[in-house]
Amino acid sequence: MACKPGSPHLSPAEIEPLLNQLQGWSLEEADGHLRLSRVYKVKGFMPAVDLVNRIAPIAEAEKHHPDLLVSWGSVTVQLWTHAAGGLTENDFILAAKLDRL
Amino acid sequence: MACKPGSPHLSPAEIEPLLNQLQGWSLEEADGHLRLSRVYKVKGFMPAVDLVNRIAPIAEAEKHHPDLLVSWGSVTVQLWTHAAGGLTENDFILAAKLDRL
Repeated sequence: MACKPGSPHLSPAEIEPLLNQLQGWSLEEADGHLRLSRVYKVKGFMPAVDLVNRIAPIAEAEKHHPDLLVSWGSVTVQLWTHAAGGLTENDFILAAKLDRL
Repeated sequence: MACKPGSPHLSPAEIEPLLNQLQGWSLEEADGHLRLSRVYKVKGFMPAVDLVNRIAPIAEAEKHHPDLLVSWGSVTVQLWTHAAGGLTENDFILAAKLDRL
């Protein structure tokens, strides 16, 4: 990914040390931007819905909202900062807070 | 999509009249099978989570669980029957019930 001076999103060099502080999250490229993704495995459908309900207030408090893919047995969290067109520190902060659940 | 005799999923000819009874749902092919998909637009993130909480008990009651993509402003519902490798009447029944929300 090209990183212009003054780019509002983090550069790959800035991302690497932040990513190293997380466990279980992967870096993906989708639709021309980077995002953080993690799959949380759960036992069934209602446990996946319950996890969404535990993620939601944290996202609201951070004013930063992930995409959540809810399936029987898993919730996939995808994080990026739309306004910045890529990853910002806010994505890493939210990822770390979600991992405390 | 080839339809073998005794196939557990509905054929395209069987799907068409059922799809015509729904509004707002589209037929998609993904990963080699057909699925029903509908985007419900909502105003924000918590309204999307609220919609998940209203969908969940209906899915539980039907013992049929959709995939739900939760984003700020929308919930995308994807329905298909894993065990049948495609669409069954159960998918159309759940779609109709969700539309009554």
